[in-house]
Amino acid sequence: MQTPKINLPAVHAEVCAVFERYEKALVENDVDVLDELFWNSEYTLRYGVAENLYGYSEIAKFRASRPGQSLQRRLVNTVITTYGEDFATANTEFLRDTVHGRQSQTWMRTPEGWRVVAAHVSLMPKPQ
Amino acid sequence: MQTPKINLPAVHAEVCAVFERYEKALVENDVDVLDELFWNSEYTLRYGVAENLYGYSEIAKFRASRPGQSLQRRLVNTVITTYGEDFATANTEFLRDTVHGRQSQTWMRTPEGWRVVAAHVSLMPKPQ
Repeated sequence: MQTPKINLPAVHAEVCAVFERYEKALVENDVDVLDELFWNSEYTLRYGVAENLYGYSEIAKFRASRPGQSLQRRLVNTVITTYGEDFATANTEFLRDTVHGRQSQTWMRTPEGWRVVAAHVSLMPKPQ
Repeated sequence: MQTPKINLPAVHAEVCAVFERYEKALVENDVDVLDELFWNSEYTLRYGVAENLYGYSEIAKFRASRPGQSLQRRLVNTVITTYGEDFATANTEFLRDTVHGRQSQTWMRTPEGWRVVAAHVSLMPKPQ
């Protein structure tokens, strides 16, 4: 076997577009789009800043209850990498007021489009 | 296209084995094995508890300088999912003394074996 082709331009462009769509939905708290872009599977998981959510249903329930304000943020050091035609990772740091966080997503192509199969969001520790 | 086959038994067994090999190397601070199991690429990245490392070289440099003690931990709620034959995610919570953390890895099959292409480790916030 060969290592999958990394960052094929057409594939990379697709994932960048869906990543941007997710980011827009996040800052606007567009729950329908956020739900759409997570893989509808019991295997999907999301580690959030203060919660560990297992399965699509737990994630959707969390989205529905999340306060929809103060979500604006600035992304820095975003790295989107595609592996072959059907898998990708999207990692970014984000800044909001005094918060410095990191967001990691693993994306998979499905018949319905690109979906997040696993995500992890955390904050950098405050300087002591 | 079809969604890739999830958790094919032979593939899942391979990733479980390499995940366990990584965990053993981590608690024993076996830097050679830790380095081996990360993809040797400028695209590889690792968000650690308090550092954001971009590229294989930064990760290896961090490993080499890390104190090799008190790394023992207990894993809970480990979820390893494989997508087709060449991609996987491994997510786990870990407990060490009063620490409660989360570790996320995205794995890819390469000609040299399974490798971590992106990782994110963080601690749950302490109760206020």
